[in-house]
Amino acid sequence: MILGHIKQILPKSNQKILIGVSGGPDSLCLLDGLARLQYPVVVAHFNHHLRPEADDEAQRVGEMAASRGVPASFGGKDVKHYAHENSLSIEEAARILRYQFLFAEAQTLNAKVVVVGHNANDQVETILMNILRGSGLAGLTGMSSYTLPNQWSTSIPLVRPLLSIWREDILAYCQKHRLTPIYDHSNAETTYFRNRVRHELIPLLEEYRPGVRQRLWQMACVLDGDQEVLEQQVEKLWEDLPLERTSNYLAFEIEKILSLPKGLQRRLIRRAFHYLRPDFTEVSFQIIEQARQFMASPPQGKEANLAGRVRIIFIGERVYFAAWEANVPLTIWPQMPNKTDCELPVPGEVLLNNGWRLQAKHVDAQGMAYDPILHNASPCQVWLDAEETPTPLTLRIRRPGDRFSPLGMDGQSMKVADFMINEKIPQQARERWPLVISQGEVVWIAGCRLAHAARITSRTKKIISLTLRRD
Amino acid sequence: MILGHIKQILPKSNQKILIGVSGGPDSLCLLDGLARLQYPVVVAHFNHHLRPEADDEAQRVGEMAASRGVPASFGGKDVKHYAHENSLSIEEAARILRYQFLFAEAQTLNAKVVVVGHNANDQVETILMNILRGSGLAGLTGMSSYTLPNQWSTSIPLVRPLLSIWREDILAYCQKHRLTPIYDHSNAETTYFRNRVRHELIPLLEEYRPGVRQRLWQMACVLDGDQEVLEQQVEKLWEDLPLERTSNYLAFEIEKILSLPKGLQRRLIRRAFHYLRPDFTEVSFQIIEQARQFMASPPQGKEANLAGRVRIIFIGERVYFAAWEANVPLTIWPQMPNKTDCELPVPGEVLLNNGWRLQAKHVDAQGMAYDPILHNASPCQVWLDAEETPTPLTLRIRRPGDRFSPLGMDGQSMKVADFMINEKIPQQARERWPLVISQGEVVWIAGCRLAHAARITSRTKKIISLTLRRD
Repeated sequence: MILGHIKQILPKSNQKILIGVSGGPDSLCLLDGLARLQYPVVVAHFNHHLRPEADDEAQRVGEMAASRGVPASFGGKDVKHYAHENSLSIEEAARILRYQFLFAEAQTLNAKVVVVGHNANDQVETILMNILRGSGLAGLTGMSSYTLPNQWSTSIPLVRPLLSIWREDILAYCQKHRLTPIYDHSNAETTYFRNRVRHELIPLLEEYRPGVRQRLWQMACVLDGDQEVLEQQVEKLWEDLPLERTSNYLAFEIEKILSLPKGLQRRLIRRAFHYLRPDFTEVSFQIIEQARQFMASPPQGKEANLAGRVRIIFIGERVYFAAWEANVPLTIWPQMPNKTDCELPVPGEVLLNNGWRLQAKHVDAQGMAYDPILHNASPCQVWLDAEETPTPLTLRIRRPGDRFSPLGMDGQSMKVADFMINEKIPQQARERWPLVISQGEVVWIAGCRLAHAARITSRTKKIISLTLRRD
Repeated sequence: MILGHIKQILPKSNQKILIGVSGGPDSLCLLDGLARLQYPVVVAHFNHHLRPEADDEAQRVGEMAASRGVPASFGGKDVKHYAHENSLSIEEAARILRYQFLFAEAQTLNAKVVVVGHNANDQVETILMNILRGSGLAGLTGMSSYTLPNQWSTSIPLVRPLLSIWREDILAYCQKHRLTPIYDHSNAETTYFRNRVRHELIPLLEEYRPGVRQRLWQMACVLDGDQEVLEQQVEKLWEDLPLERTSNYLAFEIEKILSLPKGLQRRLIRRAFHYLRPDFTEVSFQIIEQARQFMASPPQGKEANLAGRVRIIFIGERVYFAAWEANVPLTIWPQMPNKTDCELPVPGEVLLNNGWRLQAKHVDAQGMAYDPILHNASPCQVWLDAEETPTPLTLRIRRPGDRFSPLGMDGQSMKVADFMINEKIPQQARERWPLVISQGEVVWIAGCRLAHAARITSRTKKIISLTLRRD
């Protein structure tokens, strides 16, 4: 039964298989099974240096391999030290170092698969631990029998051929084939969380509801199918939705995000975090809900700092998820290419950043339709009285103390800085915002508002037209 | 905080609200809150007759209502008796009878909403109990704060305004407002499953991982979003996929079902069960997997009986989910319209059931391309030697003892009944299957096989062609 199961999970080929062997019943049973089925295997044993008998055990594993004619390699690290250095539990530190070793060895030895001996009981324990940690659907599905890409490799899969075999069947296999596994006595203690779950919680639950192990295992199976459906959907959204995608920011149409069901919004946000900050693994429910609520009703500031040094920014109808260091909004606003002034020839044009350009030309006042000019319908196309705004025109960034009399305010003046805030030009874009200057006065905050003095009147004879546009 | 929360969950209107009040802290707090906020409420109390003090408690609830000027109605049943009669646990029987009463009262009193006092602790207990029962995603999301349609009504929603309020906050509310709830002492015992979970399991889990209650509650929130996404997808598939849908069977294109991810296959199968057998609530993982595996590789018989008196049937490229009593296959097979014989005129045609028709005509043997005739490529188009099959031809259903010498068996004969079994004609379709008779002999099992004697040979001079087709 176990052999048949292994054959089903692990199709036979000539590819070398690296098997992680602690020497316990699971890994010994797996090693024995693979050797019996004549898979091309190599054994790898990691010494955690946690118990006095660890060196003896390494030697025992060497004998297990040798007696089957299988090559074996050995490694080890000071797990306690690593745990302390990285503020990890002993269990977590051991896991990280062990897998790092297994995959490094696989690479070195040219093995194409790494297999480990996790069984169905381990699976149920993992699921329960994840429930207690408050995991989402992914955690409730437990471990996978096949994982690629995984945390340690994008090319070598991690395979768990015994994941649906119960411990008692593994022990029966060991007994039948006269295998003498190593029993790790620290497993019997309840100092570690997993061991408490194994020796205390699961027996109690079995007493409440006999058969709870099998049911939890089945639950993981069913949820795994659900998780797959959701992941497929998010994968598709991830491909289709982003309007912009650079290494450090992503843009989405806000309405499209809001029209998604909550579950997909949450998964998409999680994915964005993972994309921007692959090392930030603590994307909690709270962080995701904060982002969701911010999107549902963006507050005044239109920008929020989330955890993990990720910002969320609204610009027009877009929402940006961005790393702190990303220059997000600048890509969509007109910006001066540098801080030095430049002449705006009439007729002529100046190239700004990001594909924006500012064009100036003379227009004959005679025969003009005054309506669009007076209504100033588009903020990106304005008409100036040429006598009130004599050439040369200059383009420059704002300076401290710059003032401006916006059209529509009867000649009252205000600070350019205040005007920009009122107009909700994002803070990052204000520094390099292009201003059109005539005789030292601001006559147009490009794409935004004309100066009162520059407006067309019934006395206007000559007109200059200015156009800001993006290619 | 509790009042604010109630207002959020239960928008104010003039519609009458029926509130189920046991007199415990939850329902008393809810009653007090609703009355304080001047919602138009009526109290309903159900007497379970399980404890000696039950009658006193009913009276106390009457006083709670009266002191707030709220009308109250009372009901009760012998829960123990009902549990015994229906092989239910006391808890389950009490739940069913209580909700039946609440919704019947709501109907009578013209209330538009039923509200009950479940709190966040109840929610966590429910989730844990569902985990131990081996529930799928739906169970892991726990109770909903708003359910319509629900088990008891399609028009009156069941609302739980306190579902995100923790018990300690409810007790604090009771204390602050000097409410004196009834404490049900059976809650303190651990005889019932829920009470063991409440008083034993959750404290233990809190000891393992402090804050586990909050995390389970959040988990339910997140999973609820996931569940919504999946349900939307299944809803769409349920609308789009069925090729046929009658009250007692459903047909799908088998390839379309198989191309769905496992999670959606499972949900669609569950939905089909619910559609065909709404009262069959025990659609287990095993039943669903049995149906899935049957679909993935349909065995010889091409029909399987699942639990709940549901059949799964393959016909051509379709899979049918059908109630036992449904006449599924008959709709797609050629069938005699009734049990009496009829003549098949040559040339001429006979109309069968379900849009099928059988056509006969003379063909001149001279100048015929013999190839298709000899190869008999389509089972629905055959050529007969007219001299070997003299007219009149008759159409009739099979009779006990009918024998037949199928083409390709060198004139050996067999029972028509056996032949039909070999050909895998579904049992329900055999009774009315059309046979073509000449001189008392079966010359064609329509759409299936010609008789040896009727075949075309090099000596054939006159030919009759028979065609079976569906409009």
